[in-house]
Amino acid sequence: MIVLAVDCMGGDHGPKVTLQACRQFLDRHPDTQILLVGQPYALSGFQHDRARIVPAAEVVTMDDSVEVALRRKKDSSTRVAVQQVKSGEAQVAVSAGNTGALMAISRYLLKTIDGIERPAIATQLPNVKGRATTVLDLGANVDCTAEHLLQFAVMGSALVSVLNDDPAPTVGLLNIGEEVIKGSDEIKRAGELLRSAAKAGDLNFVGNVEGNDIFKGTADIVVCDGFVGNVALKTTEGLASMIMQFLREEFTRNIGTKLAAIVSYPVLSALKKRLDHRRYNGAALLGLRGLVFKSHGSADALAFEEALVRAYDAARHQLLERVQARIAHAAPLLAESAAAVPTPHADA
Amino acid sequence: MIVLAVDCMGGDHGPKVTLQACRQFLDRHPDTQILLVGQPYALSGFQHDRARIVPAAEVVTMDDSVEVALRRKKDSSTRVAVQQVKSGEAQVAVSAGNTGALMAISRYLLKTIDGIERPAIATQLPNVKGRATTVLDLGANVDCTAEHLLQFAVMGSALVSVLNDDPAPTVGLLNIGEEVIKGSDEIKRAGELLRSAAKAGDLNFVGNVEGNDIFKGTADIVVCDGFVGNVALKTTEGLASMIMQFLREEFTRNIGTKLAAIVSYPVLSALKKRLDHRRYNGAALLGLRGLVFKSHGSADALAFEEALVRAYDAARHQLLERVQARIAHAAPLLAESAAAVPTPHADA
Repeated sequence: MIVLAVDCMGGDHGPKVTLQACRQFLDRHPDTQILLVGQPYALSGFQHDRARIVPAAEVVTMDDSVEVALRRKKDSSTRVAVQQVKSGEAQVAVSAGNTGALMAISRYLLKTIDGIERPAIATQLPNVKGRATTVLDLGANVDCTAEHLLQFAVMGSALVSVLNDDPAPTVGLLNIGEEVIKGSDEIKRAGELLRSAAKAGDLNFVGNVEGNDIFKGTADIVVCDGFVGNVALKTTEGLASMIMQFLREEFTRNIGTKLAAIVSYPVLSALKKRLDHRRYNGAALLGLRGLVFKSHGSADALAFEEALVRAYDAARHQLLERVQARIAHAAPLLAESAAAVPTPHADA
Repeated sequence: MIVLAVDCMGGDHGPKVTLQACRQFLDRHPDTQILLVGQPYALSGFQHDRARIVPAAEVVTMDDSVEVALRRKKDSSTRVAVQQVKSGEAQVAVSAGNTGALMAISRYLLKTIDGIERPAIATQLPNVKGRATTVLDLGANVDCTAEHLLQFAVMGSALVSVLNDDPAPTVGLLNIGEEVIKGSDEIKRAGELLRSAAKAGDLNFVGNVEGNDIFKGTADIVVCDGFVGNVALKTTEGLASMIMQFLREEFTRNIGTKLAAIVSYPVLSALKKRLDHRRYNGAALLGLRGLVFKSHGSADALAFEEALVRAYDAARHQLLERVQARIAHAAPLLAESAAAVPTPHADA
């Protein structure tokens, strides 16, 4: 039996969406239980023999700073959900709430795995090869050092090797050109570290990749700092929405195009399904001593259920233990990089 | 008569593409002349009564470092093209070559406008409002301070006020959340500077925007550092290509969908045209004492011609003088920000 702790208060729509998703999920996954975390009055209408309410008096809002979430709202639904993982009541926690708060609370309660200074948020995007490209970090860390990027590469490799059953998934470093000379000093230094790791056999590093390579599927894993990753992800969502709107506009322009739309209906719905970002909802918080998944704040019930499914898959595939094992294997490498690393300029 | 200096050797395809684009452009714009800059043997086949060859013995490759381009290849087509602007032979230079080299050469030969420390690359992307969102910087500056971002905002406002004939275009700061508390310290400080500028009446700053706002058209101008802007732009190109490929795949799946494709042909070609990134080719290098435009390296003749048209429009609308006037107006603001600015933490 897999037990999920769900922050039912989080996200733009709160219990209206999270409870509907929980019901669908429970009905489709008979080997699961859900701990519904939140304000009891908001959740008491929900009845299911594999669900029970875990009360939490407070709610972290999207505007709350990390400090407020961590220090002032000690009985928030987000914190209580993560606490269930720490205490062993649940194998995995899921929240659609404030990302910064979720990350800070998870880090505070669960702590990071040895060798990992900062957890990262990883999600999967579709690519033309029909597989998925895993991108991290997506917003947990706005200023990353080269060492952090190396740690993300190791964590991402661990995640993808579990998900794809591939012992050596490829890793690319997101940059503004394929050439080694491109990018900021920190990015160049990250390239050095990743090349060293590849030589040591700990990573399958393929070099620099650019923004378009995410969708080309040039590498299984694309590593970047959280600011860049977040902008790339949201830019992607914005463009996909715009294209779907353009399609609607063009197909409703006149009677002829409306006819074309009817004839093309199966094609358009297949396309819509392939691009539906709700299908890619559910990002893993990697590097923690416990499993936590983040749903998009604007998720509807279908999207939130997708995040629940990802969390469930991670728990039943022992993602945590496998990521820890892989990081332990790379421990000497991470320790070496965390010690003094000469910059490329120092010896140039 | 508008005179353009064209680096005919630059880009992935060189003279094959640039010369074809020049011919089309000249035929469609009778009030223009082109200086074809490059190796004479490669250009001598081109005959037009409003074009003449300006010889340059060397070519900057995509792999050349800025140092090589600037110090070792003093007779490169890129440099000679920019030199034509400096000497007054041409009003604007256009190149599809190495971006870093073009920027370094332009900065070295033309110098920056007073008050601007670093030039920026600005381009326009489509949005759902049917207008364009101007994004800068797109890769000239991989590490930007808050002061640089303020300068980009002023330059972008000047560009858009000329292009759209709007005295107060809106400016957004690209960030990972709308809230003031989001982002790195440098981004938060940029937010402070932009708010001060708005209070002083020098900018129409609307606050933080996210990646998806580029395509929503939330602000006329989106300001970001060059690393982030470059990743966002290339991610956009990658996603648009993937979606067009998905459409092709879905419409060629079987006899029924192929029939639908025939019926939908006018719709699909209208969509393709709206999304065609070749139509958005031609980025302005802003902040220099001369007009320089950058074409995408992979441009075909249609795309390169689009860049020529943008350069021509900028020259005939006196973009340079108008940008300079606007920056002069904001000079006290820029000088103030370039002096000591307390960080938000210092007085918090």
